Amino acid sequence: MENEPTKNDLEIVPNEYEETDYEVNVSIPEFNCICPRTGLPDFATIKINYIPNKYIVELKSLKLYIVKFRNMGIFHESATNKIFKDFQKSCNPKQIEVIGEFGARGGISTIVKVNSK
Amino acid sequence: MENEPTKNDLEIVPNEYEETDYEVNVSIPEFNCICPRTGLPDFATIKINYIPNKYIVELKSLKLYIVKFRNMGIFHESATNKIFKDFQKSCNPKQIEVIGEFGARGGISTIVKVNSK
Amino acid sequence: MENEPTKNDLEIVPNEYEETDYEVNVSIPEFNCICPRTGLPDFATIKINYIPNKYIVELKSLKLYIVKFRNMGIFHESATNKIFKDFQKSCNPKQIEVIGEFGARGGISTIVKVNSK
Amino acid sequence: MENEPTKNDLEIVPNEYEETDYEVNVSIPEFNCICPRTGLPDFATIKINYIPNKYIVELKSLKLYIVKFRNMGIFHESATNKIFKDFQKSCNPKQIEVIGEFGARGGISTIVKVNSK
Amino acid sequence: MENEPTKNDLEIVPNEYEETDYEVNVSIPEFNCICPRTGLPDFATIKINYIPNKYIVELKSLKLYIVKFRNMGIFHESATNKIFKDFQKSCNPKQIEVIGEFGARGGISTIVKVNSK
Amino acid sequence: MENEPTKNDLEIVPNEYEETDYEVNVSIPEFNCICPRTGLPDFATIKINYIPNKYIVELKSLKLYIVKFRNMGIFHESATNKIFKDFQKSCNPKQIEVIGEFGARGGISTIVKVNSK
Amino acid sequence: MENEPTKNDLEIVPNEYEETDYEVNVSIPEFNCICPRTGLPDFATIKINYIPNKYIVELKSLKLYIVKFRNMGIFHESATNKIFKDFQKSCNPKQIEVIGEFGARGGISTIVKVNSK
Amino acid sequence: MENEPTKNDLEIVPNEYEETDYEVNVSIPEFNCICPRTGLPDFATIKINYIPNKYIVELKSLKLYIVKFRNMGIFHESATNKIFKDFQKSCNPKQIEVIGEFGARGGISTIVKVNSK
Amino acid sequence: MENEPTKNDLEIVPNEYEETDYEVNVSIPEFNCICPRTGLPDFATIKINYIPNKYIVELKSLKLYIVKFRNMGIFHESATNKIFKDFQKSCNPKQIEVIGEFGARGGISTIVKVNSK
Amino acid sequence: MENEPTKNDLEIVPNEYEETDYEVNVSIPEFNCICPRTGLPDFATIKINYIPNKYIVELKSLKLYIVKFRNMGIFHESATNKIFKDFQKSCNPKQIEVIGEFGARGGISTIVKVNSK
Repeated sequence: MENEPTKNDLEIVPNEYEETDYEVNVSIPEFNCICPRTGLPDFATIKINYIPNKYIVELKSLKLYIVKFRNMGIFHESATNKIFKDFQKSCNPKQIEVIGEFGARGGISTIVKVNSK
Repeated sequence: MENEPTKNDLEIVPNEYEETDYEVNVSIPEFNCICPRTGLPDFATIKINYIPNKYIVELKSLKLYIVKFRNMGIFHESATNKIFKDFQKSCNPKQIEVIGEFGARGGISTIVKVNSK
Repeated sequence: MENEPTKNDLEIVPNEYEETDYEVNVSIPEFNCICPRTGLPDFATIKINYIPNKYIVELKSLKLYIVKFRNMGIFHESATNKIFKDFQKSCNPKQIEVIGEFGARGGISTIVKVNSK
Repeated sequence: MENEPTKNDLEIVPNEYEETDYEVNVSIPEFNCICPRTGLPDFATIKINYIPNKYIVELKSLKLYIVKFRNMGIFHESATNKIFKDFQKSCNPKQIEVIGEFGARGGISTIVKVNSK
Repeated sequence: MENEPTKNDLEIVPNEYEETDYEVNVSIPEFNCICPRTGLPDFATIKINYIPNKYIVELKSLKLYIVKFRNMGIFHESATNKIFKDFQKSCNPKQIEVIGEFGARGGISTIVKVNSK
Repeated sequence: MENEPTKNDLEIVPNEYEETDYEVNVSIPEFNCICPRTGLPDFATIKINYIPNKYIVELKSLKLYIVKFRNMGIFHESATNKIFKDFQKSCNPKQIEVIGEFGARGGISTIVKVNSK
Repeated sequence: MENEPTKNDLEIVPNEYEETDYEVNVSIPEFNCICPRTGLPDFATIKINYIPNKYIVELKSLKLYIVKFRNMGIFHESATNKIFKDFQKSCNPKQIEVIGEFGARGGISTIVKVNSK
Repeated sequence: MENEPTKNDLEIVPNEYEETDYEVNVSIPEFNCICPRTGLPDFATIKINYIPNKYIVELKSLKLYIVKFRNMGIFHESATNKIFKDFQKSCNPKQIEVIGEFGARGGISTIVKVNSK
Repeated sequence: MENEPTKNDLEIVPNEYEETDYEVNVSIPEFNCICPRTGLPDFATIKINYIPNKYIVELKSLKLYIVKFRNMGIFHESATNKIFKDFQKSCNPKQIEVIGEFGARGGISTIVKVNSK
Repeated sequence: MENEPTKNDLEIVPNEYEETDYEVNVSIPEFNCICPRTGLPDFATIKINYIPNKYIVELKSLKLYIVKFRNMGIFHESATNKIFKDFQKSCNPKQIEVIGEFGARGGISTIVKVNSK
């Protein structure tokens, strides 16, 4: 339990360009979690697009946060929504979108997109 | 007859993130039905993009629903519209789009797009 | 003369889903006509995107209509506009766009786009 | 049973260019059969490359032969080997290769290649 | 001097479909001019997108007009703007966009886009 | 009849580099003929790869030769073999290969390859 | 320890076409193991190409065998060689090649190829 | 210190087409700087899209300005924002967007986008 | 006349690694010459692959040599063979291949390949 | 001087699979050095393909070795040959190939390939 990813895993650093609205696109092709039904691993690419407010998220901590999902049983929709919420709570961006592109299961592939508006 | 796909084939599960408007994109490259004129099989990729309301559609049941089309005589326009309606009735999404991309026949390929607005 | 394509070559069938606004995209990569200046054949891909009203155009008849252009002397702009008008008159769609993508001549390739708005 | 594909479904026509060794490559992206374990449909692209001898296989009959596999329970290796043998018996080509490229199952995709040497 | 391209090189022909607003996209991948600084040739693809008014530009004359740039010393911005102005003066289109995509120089590639609005 | 393509349509010019064995690859994406069964046009890309001997084939005449096929009823295998033989007789190359890549019919696409060895 | 993948995890089934030499290409894009230095997960695509002898490897068991690597600390070269050896011992193929394509680390990506000759 | 890139490195030349609003897209795939944490080089493609006002930036000076980053310790966000500000101060464009596409680090790739609105 | 490209335009420098057989591949996408029949410019990509002997060709001089072709009337076969011979005479490589990939004329594109064996 | 890359920068580790001939392909897209003529940076992708003997090269040390080139003045041919020799001396592989793919300069791009045979 104590090993699960939480918003506290995401280290934040002050945004030096807070006065400008600029966008950061982060792409993480090596996401891994466990399907709660089959117990088999699910692979995905996670994309996070955000407009920083007072803070940006440090990339090394983001990587370690993402790695913590790999032995966690979680559905596609939940994983994407959880990353969205953790990221939002940690650095409170002006805008944010999280996209989870999951590999095919039974010939069906799924993309989940959550964004603040 | 009793073997034809109906909205009841689509199992629904509660949407845990009902308060957020998020999008789910499902892509099914292995759709198969029968051309009512020639009796020959038609191949398509079906794409379903929706914003869940109170329910999401369970993927395994969606797969079995799709498989039921393979021995059914149905036109391109009808197949796409039927999936649209069955999906809508089953989980009543906030928004939905169904796209059927059909393989070429006589050198002509066809895409049918239905969406709620 | 009597062999030229006309709107009457396009067979129409009732649209079973008239109450929904859905889009049909038809792609015909094997269009052929004659350049009125050089007498040499011109090759194109014709794309027809429309929102059906009371009728949809039957694909087999569309194919035979398109084949009739192959010995007809006609300019790029005229061929695309003629298909647009014939299609419009035959099934009176809610919206329609016709795109002709013509192969390079003298190192210059041309696309013609006509749409109802 | 009587509905299963056999070599007799493949119509042959005399090869007018028997004296030249030329190659014919046929690609059939719309192959469908049934997985004997799960009962679910398997999708594949079948490629047949051969050097005709006294006969070539007529394409329309090849298509109908291929369509007969769609309700037949058969493994990937068996389907590819069966097509190889039926084709060989029907037109006795100088050389032949059959390739079956099957869609992913459980995240694993398979290609089977059989050839005469 | 008398060999430089001018608007008079562009032959115009009446637009038979003046009443419809349709778009013509012309792509010319073989543009060549001389860099005024180095004296070396610059290569580009020129794209012209316009909505014809009373006239369309004849393609053969457009080709010869373009060829006249090949020994002319002219900067990227100027070449694209000159084509824009010459085209506008010659056929007075309802709308026009000219795009010059120039090959890399010193590892930097440049695109210039001019349009009427 | 007198309008059918023959080897005499292919103009030859002396090969200035006869002493070197060099290869010429010609690609003609706009081939058109008539299917003898359906009467409908067939589209193909024709590729000719040869090592010239005393003569090379002039490209303009090759184009006009190819255009002559467009109203001729001929099978895929025959068209490719005929071009092979006509080319061989006209310029007697050291080596030659002719490839005909035909568009899909009934979901099956065909490539025919003939070469001298 | 007892959880590590071994050759016994690979189920074999009799090869019905033992008399023909045919090739099977298996592609597994979702391989995962642990880097022994950093403790972080490594992602790879594993490709197995083999000519079956008396047995073929059953795909479901292959998948479960592959999944067992995901919490195992192992280097790129060792993982690929281990799969090669386990596969060889389990079904003793006439020929076999195993390719491990590993994702970039520090901007360097690595491919390991082992084959029997 | 005196070697660091500044807005004064960017030479400007008068914009001859000031009266027209046209866009210039510059793409620089060979950007290099130093990661302040690891001391290792970071690689990026920098894209600058702007609508010139009274001046355009001379490309040779832009190249030399960009080269000055290669031994400078600077974060992704800072590098992109600095180029944005230097460019803005130097030629005061009507509109400007700067995009930095950075190569993957630890399997995560980052894009930073700054624009004036 | 004195302006035509000759082997003397190709500057050579000593090959420091003469004892190793290594290959150099040079690709020049911006070749330009004049068609002797139509007087219009022809565009090509020239590729030179060689194994240096005692000398390598300096790239700046190669570029200037290539530029000299742009106002010269010369056929595709001749241009490729001339570059082959000039390069061979200038640096006498252990092996050399020259490939000229010419843009489409009348819908036909041509590649000429010359190599020493 | 003492900062230049040497074979001693390449750490080696024992090859556990010395008895099998297997291939390792390493791809390094972020190579950087200085052009000795212009003083400007040159960018390349370096590919190293080798069959290990008693040792393999450790990747982290390879990365640091490669980074040392970035402020070194060296020609394309020399850089590729130097890496080839350093690698060969450090781990004495059974076979090795080094490929340097350098970015375009003056519109000409160069690939250098060295291999042991």
